[in-house]
Amino acid sequence: MTDSLITLTTDFGEDSPYVAAMKGVVMTINPAARVIDLSHQIPPQNLRHAAFFLAASLPYFPPAALHIIVVDPGVGTDRPLLYVEGNGLRLLVPDNGCWTTLPWGAAGPLVIRLEERRFWRPEVSATFHGRDILAPVAGHLSLGVDPHLLGPVATDWIRLSLPEASEGPKGWKGEVQFVDHFGNLITNIPAAALGVPPSPERIVVVGNRKLRGIRWVHSYAEAEPGALVGLVSSAGTVEVAVNQGSAARRLRASVGTPVRVARLPGEE
Amino acid sequence: MTDSLITLTTDFGEDSPYVAAMKGVVMTINPAARVIDLSHQIPPQNLRHAAFFLAASLPYFPPAALHIIVVDPGVGTDRPLLYVEGNGLRLLVPDNGCWTTLPWGAAGPLVIRLEERRFWRPEVSATFHGRDILAPVAGHLSLGVDPHLLGPVATDWIRLSLPEASEGPKGWKGEVQFVDHFGNLITNIPAAALGVPPSPERIVVVGNRKLRGIRWVHSYAEAEPGALVGLVSSAGTVEVAVNQGSAARRLRASVGTPVRVARLPGEE
Amino acid sequence: MTDSLITLTTDFGEDSPYVAAMKGVVMTINPAARVIDLSHQIPPQNLRHAAFFLAASLPYFPPAALHIIVVDPGVGTDRPLLYVEGNGLRLLVPDNGCWTTLPWGAAGPLVIRLEERRFWRPEVSATFHGRDILAPVAGHLSLGVDPHLLGPVATDWIRLSLPEASEGPKGWKGEVQFVDHFGNLITNIPAAALGVPPSPERIVVVGNRKLRGIRWVHSYAEAEPGALVGLVSSAGTVEVAVNQGSAARRLRASVGTPVRVARLPGEE
Repeated sequence: MTDSLITLTTDFGEDSPYVAAMKGVVMTINPAARVIDLSHQIPPQNLRHAAFFLAASLPYFPPAALHIIVVDPGVGTDRPLLYVEGNGLRLLVPDNGCWTTLPWGAAGPLVIRLEERRFWRPEVSATFHGRDILAPVAGHLSLGVDPHLLGPVATDWIRLSLPEASEGPKGWKGEVQFVDHFGNLITNIPAAALGVPPSPERIVVVGNRKLRGIRWVHSYAEAEPGALVGLVSSAGTVEVAVNQGSAARRLRASVGTPVRVARLPGEE
Repeated sequence: MTDSLITLTTDFGEDSPYVAAMKGVVMTINPAARVIDLSHQIPPQNLRHAAFFLAASLPYFPPAALHIIVVDPGVGTDRPLLYVEGNGLRLLVPDNGCWTTLPWGAAGPLVIRLEERRFWRPEVSATFHGRDILAPVAGHLSLGVDPHLLGPVATDWIRLSLPEASEGPKGWKGEVQFVDHFGNLITNIPAAALGVPPSPERIVVVGNRKLRGIRWVHSYAEAEPGALVGLVSSAGTVEVAVNQGSAARRLRASVGTPVRVARLPGEE
Repeated sequence: MTDSLITLTTDFGEDSPYVAAMKGVVMTINPAARVIDLSHQIPPQNLRHAAFFLAASLPYFPPAALHIIVVDPGVGTDRPLLYVEGNGLRLLVPDNGCWTTLPWGAAGPLVIRLEERRFWRPEVSATFHGRDILAPVAGHLSLGVDPHLLGPVATDWIRLSLPEASEGPKGWKGEVQFVDHFGNLITNIPAAALGVPPSPERIVVVGNRKLRGIRWVHSYAEAEPGALVGLVSSAGTVEVAVNQGSAARRLRASVGTPVRVARLPGEE
């Protein structure tokens, strides 16, 4: 039953017992469930990081997978918990918008509010809905429960609005949207802004630092170790990196740092 | 065979090859075993942290699960290794007490000393009993070996004694027993100490800091971001937290920091 | 089908979505694959750390396991990707040598270059061959694809040369080859250098620090907490450790720090 593939993405870390408790609850309901860790290192309550993480990982999973996401600044308030389904994705997630930037297709997702307490743990704490609501609901879904039994269809939910890059007369303005484990800076500026092929004349500004003559490469290792390079990220946007080093540290940049890509003289 | 669910909790970290070697040993003996990570981020040799972790996670697992715990300051000495069973829990663990604060029920656990070398790896190193004894024993148990074949029943073992909160004329005295990944301070003072409902007049002292007018909430997000709040932890004790922040950092508190909850004037 | 056991070892960390994407790709091709994390905490691009990690973990797995290793300073260049098989091990790994210090036996490994694009993702990025080549190839192999279909047999590949200890008139000279999560210093000097039993007269030098009268033990806990001890590592080499503490911090030592073990007066 491939249906029993359940993934976990949280900001719990692994020094705390929260992830372990969730796994136990799922497996008590469905001992055959296969629970897969995606990450427990989402920075605490960081919805933007979560949104990038989900967009860069969930679409690679088979449609039968059920993804539990617990990054939940509003735990314990009356924010709803949701089951979301569409375009080959199935999620259980608090209503905080981090899932809304996934590719839901033209039809949009089916969204159901988790209200049927018979699929929850008998006692629900105020601070740990991941263990007491999302995990047991996942267990029941993996056993074949019809999602429509979980609660009413929702027609409204919180949408995460992420900063978008914009094009002006001088070129593109955007920002760093993700810094990966290696310190690579992944911006939100579309790679097309670079022209084909990108020119070394093109100036990139990261924060206050003007990078003249940046080397445009297809991959990090084309440059010598320590070289600052620009390339197309695996997300299809402009990326600034240091081969075998950290561009984040070198340029003192982080999520939200402004980035500009200048228009070349004479370029339309 | 749901019996083949084996969980791992260690202080090994994931930069070292020790966890990987244990997984390999289990799966060489039982290729169908499902090995689940609970945590490898228990602080090195920290039995108190391990005890809290186990109590907050193992009871959520199905009874068929077999839990390997390797937090083992005494590795290589003649401290025994134990199989422990009771009240729906099955453990493999060094005799260091970290498991004794789990709820074993009135009957108490069945404890067996691992002495039968035929269930161990042929060569046993002095420094890595997790790989050479606990992992192969887990593999054999998951294949249906009777625990009584592993060695003699033990009647004595080390008990971990954790500091307990006490009630005096001025109120409750206790301490921080766990700091979670978010910096929330989970004390050992029973939530009942707060009264129902808790009063904002009630003074909480963390270390040397008197928290007057602390806001008592059901969950973090009831207060504005950055607010210091008190609540009932998921462990049923008094918890001090900062909404979307770290109470540990704000109050410079850690495990063992004294906490007092004052009696209200006129309160019995 | 035990064939479907696939392990993952990377330097990706878990804050980035890269590991999750690889798991998704494998499971989309083979939903029944069991994907096991070995580590995602290999220090970035550190081939020596990876080599030690692999040697201390992979040999414990059953021969049917397929191990994906992504520590890949050359991603995006034309360095080949390899399938390697022999002596009970099966690997998918970039051609960077980190796997060459595993025990391949007298016959040596069968090495195949991954060149057949029909087993890759349809679009291959320049920066993420783990997701676009290694993960799909692993999925197909786990479904029973003959490795010879993946590409031509290779007869040449990069070999990692690790510093070796040497014996001279004054004793052994070597270095720290691995520092584990506890701060234990695992050297490359064979344990035989110590004599049997090791003598407290034998001087060990770590960096510039002469350790006279070091206590030779079988395991950390034979000494009092905080004591500096020498012992035989689980890799069969000289190890310097602090019981319940960090020798790396105490001696300010790291990978590459020179270590000498002196000959005793009168010793051959």
